[in-house]
Amino acid sequence: MAQGTLYIVSAPSGAGKSSLIQALLKTQPLYDTQVSISHTTRCMRPGEQHGEHYFFVSHDEFRAMIERDAFLEHAEVFGNYYGTSREAIEQVLATGVDIFLDIDWQGAQQIRHKLPDARSIFVLPPSREELDRRLRGRGQDSEEVISRRMAQAVAEMDHYAEYDYLIVNDDFDLALSDLKTIIRAERLRIGRQKARHDGLISKLLAD
Amino acid sequence: MAQGTLYIVSAPSGAGKSSLIQALLKTQPLYDTQVSISHTTRCMRPGEQHGEHYFFVSHDEFRAMIERDAFLEHAEVFGNYYGTSREAIEQVLATGVDIFLDIDWQGAQQIRHKLPDARSIFVLPPSREELDRRLRGRGQDSEEVISRRMAQAVAEMDHYAEYDYLIVNDDFDLALSDLKTIIRAERLRIGRQKARHDGLISKLLAD
Repeated sequence: MAQGTLYIVSAPSGAGKSSLIQALLKTQPLYDTQVSISHTTRCMRPGEQHGEHYFFVSHDEFRAMIERDAFLEHAEVFGNYYGTSREAIEQVLATGVDIFLDIDWQGAQQIRHKLPDARSIFVLPPSREELDRRLRGRGQDSEEVISRRMAQAVAEMDHYAEYDYLIVNDDFDLALSDLKTIIRAERLRIGRQKARHDGLISKLLAD
Repeated sequence: MAQGTLYIVSAPSGAGKSSLIQALLKTQPLYDTQVSISHTTRCMRPGEQHGEHYFFVSHDEFRAMIERDAFLEHAEVFGNYYGTSREAIEQVLATGVDIFLDIDWQGAQQIRHKLPDARSIFVLPPSREELDRRLRGRGQDSEEVISRRMAQAVAEMDHYAEYDYLIVNDDFDLALSDLKTIIRAERLRIGRQKARHDGLISKLLAD
């Protein structure tokens, strides 16, 4: 059985990363591609399901997981913890399924360090003007809030060169097709194909 | 301008490699993808054009090129020399065009050593029976000739694991689509994209 690939996907807020991943998963069967489910200490919101959107755990449980090095990466955001369980990821990869992990550059650095076989994809918006427009959203936020969002977006984009692939999300369908192309090509890499065509290769190489 | 990529393609005789490359080139514009043209000392055959099928040179010219290290790889086959000019390849790559080079595992090893950025693809036939059938061709050859071809095919396939990608040529259209997927994905790699979207990236990262 060929191992699945873990894809790390990062982007500034407003680049359309989440929509791309959601659209991708809709076109792929579950036995093929899944999204990583994080552990978090934040409260469950209406409509959220444990084990579907997040694994909701207490601060104590989370800290215990950190102590036994159970996370590929974890971070604290506004007083709550978020983390990616190594065991959960490795179990899915072992079944040959690819996993998508939506994460920022800091999490990406942690994962690259722990799982060198992970592939990473950075998504950029098509222009500064479009990014600005997307960050303004419905126009209900103050200029100060917008500026802070833009500064965060630039800080994230500063790390694009650390990724394996770069997608510019100008035309959504084209960007989605780029994402699928990357997955298909990675499945043609020698390691994956060697495992997949094991029987054929043995027969071809027999004397 | 993003550099083009040199693709090394190897396969046992009978795997359909040449048909795949020919079909690929038909669907790609010349400014996008080309096939590498080798230098050779063998005689021109009817219908062949200098600079289109090969660069036809004398043994003396070829030896002078070897002496000034002008080849990325070269080999002697049945008393004639065949070689890939480094200068010819590098000039085309500099214009952003991808080049396909149809070559055996020995040539592939020489090129990987000299151009580490080259990508390599191995093509396998779908089964031992089908390979045997293809090597028999029109049934006009002796068993001895067929056995020698099969031994050569196995010797070539023995090196498949040295390549970056593996394509199994079972369904021709699918194999062609695999080849295109690899090229498209390689164009999404950070190095190519960084050069291609240079202007956009500068604007996005400006303070």
